[in-house]
Amino acid sequence: MILITGASSGLGAALANLYYMDGKSLLITGRNEQRLAQVAENAISNGGITGKISATLNTQQSDLCDPLSISSLLDNLGQVPNTVIHCAGSGYFGELEVQEPAAIKQLIDNNVTTTILLLRELIQRYRDHQVNVVIVMSTAAQVAKAGESTYCAAKWAVRGLVESVRLELKGYPMKLIAVYPGGMATDFWKTSGADLNTAEFMTANEAATMLKQALISTEHGFVSDITINRG
Amino acid sequence: MILITGASSGLGAALANLYYMDGKSLLITGRNEQRLAQVAENAISNGGITGKISATLNTQQSDLCDPLSISSLLDNLGQVPNTVIHCAGSGYFGELEVQEPAAIKQLIDNNVTTTILLLRELIQRYRDHQVNVVIVMSTAAQVAKAGESTYCAAKWAVRGLVESVRLELKGYPMKLIAVYPGGMATDFWKTSGADLNTAEFMTANEAATMLKQALISTEHGFVSDITINRG
Amino acid sequence: MILITGASSGLGAALANLYYMDGKSLLITGRNEQRLAQVAENAISNGGITGKISATLNTQQSDLCDPLSISSLLDNLGQVPNTVIHCAGSGYFGELEVQEPAAIKQLIDNNVTTTILLLRELIQRYRDHQVNVVIVMSTAAQVAKAGESTYCAAKWAVRGLVESVRLELKGYPMKLIAVYPGGMATDFWKTSGADLNTAEFMTANEAATMLKQALISTEHGFVSDITINRG
Amino acid sequence: MILITGASSGLGAALANLYYMDGKSLLITGRNEQRLAQVAENAISNGGITGKISATLNTQQSDLCDPLSISSLLDNLGQVPNTVIHCAGSGYFGELEVQEPAAIKQLIDNNVTTTILLLRELIQRYRDHQVNVVIVMSTAAQVAKAGESTYCAAKWAVRGLVESVRLELKGYPMKLIAVYPGGMATDFWKTSGADLNTAEFMTANEAATMLKQALISTEHGFVSDITINRG
Repeated sequence: MILITGASSGLGAALANLYYMDGKSLLITGRNEQRLAQVAENAISNGGITGKISATLNTQQSDLCDPLSISSLLDNLGQVPNTVIHCAGSGYFGELEVQEPAAIKQLIDNNVTTTILLLRELIQRYRDHQVNVVIVMSTAAQVAKAGESTYCAAKWAVRGLVESVRLELKGYPMKLIAVYPGGMATDFWKTSGADLNTAEFMTANEAATMLKQALISTEHGFVSDITINRG
Repeated sequence: MILITGASSGLGAALANLYYMDGKSLLITGRNEQRLAQVAENAISNGGITGKISATLNTQQSDLCDPLSISSLLDNLGQVPNTVIHCAGSGYFGELEVQEPAAIKQLIDNNVTTTILLLRELIQRYRDHQVNVVIVMSTAAQVAKAGESTYCAAKWAVRGLVESVRLELKGYPMKLIAVYPGGMATDFWKTSGADLNTAEFMTANEAATMLKQALISTEHGFVSDITINRG
Repeated sequence: MILITGASSGLGAALANLYYMDGKSLLITGRNEQRLAQVAENAISNGGITGKISATLNTQQSDLCDPLSISSLLDNLGQVPNTVIHCAGSGYFGELEVQEPAAIKQLIDNNVTTTILLLRELIQRYRDHQVNVVIVMSTAAQVAKAGESTYCAAKWAVRGLVESVRLELKGYPMKLIAVYPGGMATDFWKTSGADLNTAEFMTANEAATMLKQALISTEHGFVSDITINRG
Repeated sequence: MILITGASSGLGAALANLYYMDGKSLLITGRNEQRLAQVAENAISNGGITGKISATLNTQQSDLCDPLSISSLLDNLGQVPNTVIHCAGSGYFGELEVQEPAAIKQLIDNNVTTTILLLRELIQRYRDHQVNVVIVMSTAAQVAKAGESTYCAAKWAVRGLVESVRLELKGYPMKLIAVYPGGMATDFWKTSGADLNTAEFMTANEAATMLKQALISTEHGFVSDITINRG
């Protein structure tokens, strides 16, 4: 059982499709119920073609800034998930002086608050279980970028959180996996305010394919950090 | 003219006192009007003893999460400040699973949102002036720490912001100076939830003394990053 | 065609075996000719059992601190390699004050000089080809560690090199992939001076299995950085 | 008593002059005996003009890659120094593929090997004393730069060393102070292979003035990391 957040579009949606095609049961969540249903419908219809899928694919709308919504989401899992892939997030760009306070606050909520609150409840529930929690950030968590100051701030925050919580989880079976994808050609950019030619960007499906394959573990080890870049 | 935020206690208050003793005119701001008035009264009474102070020391209560409060603050400066020292911030600690959502959101507001909104308006107004903007963070912005995951997240966010905005300010006379103090023996800890013996910590006054001296510039250069540690 | 350095033991030897079993033609190199021959013999005998291997597995002793030895090695490839996996390196540990100057210089030579000289000649020859150059470092390249100061110095050097050369390779088809494995249970530790219980460490074969799988690329992207940890 | 390495030119020479003018007794060292003597002569003649200097200024040629030379240098101090300022180092630049193996090896020796061997012997002798060891690196230790790959490698190495040795020195009175100056207008560039207009660079004297002032400590704390940038 895999839980995927931010699954109504982009990398989350692409991962939902790939894992479902691979026979994994999923609960996918996102802010937009309609798009979430569409993602599920597409995956099931793809899976139907291959005719090999007996897995379940459930959807649940959620607001990860709301602790009650997170509780309800995890209650609905019905079991301890093997893997949680946290893709939820949003972008907002431009020189700092032209950014709007309301949009800045929303950016922080969507990227930082969500991740803190989700991780907090995952630890409360599953710390003693072998759960791989995959936190999808961005290469913007690793470097500073002009025109992306608040986005970098939000992503650096998540990285600081992940690295600190890793220290708190020492000795527990729960693991955090940090993922840093570079720019993908998704709707993310259309709504973010950035004006970019994304023709040479990876598609979300390419990034999802690489990420799914790179998420490996063995008896004594696991791939803990993955950066995926264009090129 | 120097603007100091977070001046109602701790490092901000200590800096206010030191700069005033040194004859610099100040506008100091903080969330708590009464404590702010007390800081000003102490500084003026100290300055009175030395008998050499002709500088002004004004106070203004502000909420740096509110863009209107920031605008009003900068309007009241009456001139372009030489230096802005942003000390405002708060702490909140503990293993992630026992932290409270409301306190987490307040921590992010007090440390991240304030800094973004203040820096945004400083750039709008003063980008073309020789203004040194000193952003006081913490060594928690440089490393991960167990028991401080959300605090590290907030401080890493500010660091990501500062490093990105520096790239946007290339070629402008406004400069960002990043300051990373280690733990000080201030009221910060009493209200933060951490249980620490702070007897060996620096006092706020020690840190302020070092910071004031280390904030130097020459014709072609300036001290851009300062870490102050215990020891 | 894959070139693997440091292939006479540890991760390099394990990778040689895995890639050969997978039908890839290899040139493997190392400082110790006898152990290199043994690695090749084992791989071929393993491959013989599966009966499916038509690939070639050649060995060449080399000293990567010597530019002539590197030239000779690359001359012997006979073609442009798809992939170069640079595993060569050695360890040396202990508090700094008890480390020996001669051993320190050798550590730097084995880890830093080798990588610089190899990378330099790879770029001279293959910069315009689609060659993936995989530089295997260590988690010691990402953090500071007491008792490993010179080893961290050497590994931080390689990381600084890789990140800088990436900037020089922008726009070229050659790609650098950075790999950071945590501690493995290999002979590395026996000869390094560290006194460790490696029972819970990954085996070299586990790390090689994960690394081989995580080295993925698609049309517009590739996994550029991989950290493999115990746990 | 202050020991300054790399004092025959640039920042080291400028610091020697400033500290001597301030009445501090010095032992200055460098590779070039003649230039070292010239630096001392200038400082003494400057000091003579102010007429207030009763301090001593001794010179000793040394090769910090040679442990015996380091031992002889520290033997000649005659006492435990308060401060050691390690400025020794050299530059070498250009795209990696055009760099020469011999010059690369010398670059590593001059920057990495020297620092490791000096720090090793300083710890052996003075770990239990209140000695401030100031390690002067470069902003190239903090970021990657195209055209400076081996220089960044060398400087990242020193940073990894310093951060690791700090962990080993926990609880000892000896302190490491890390200094990262940006580009200065010194002879360094003439001999480094870089082709730069240094008119807007800081002079060595500007950087020395800032560094000297920023090297502060109080009863419970000290400025541990200083970055000095152009601008």
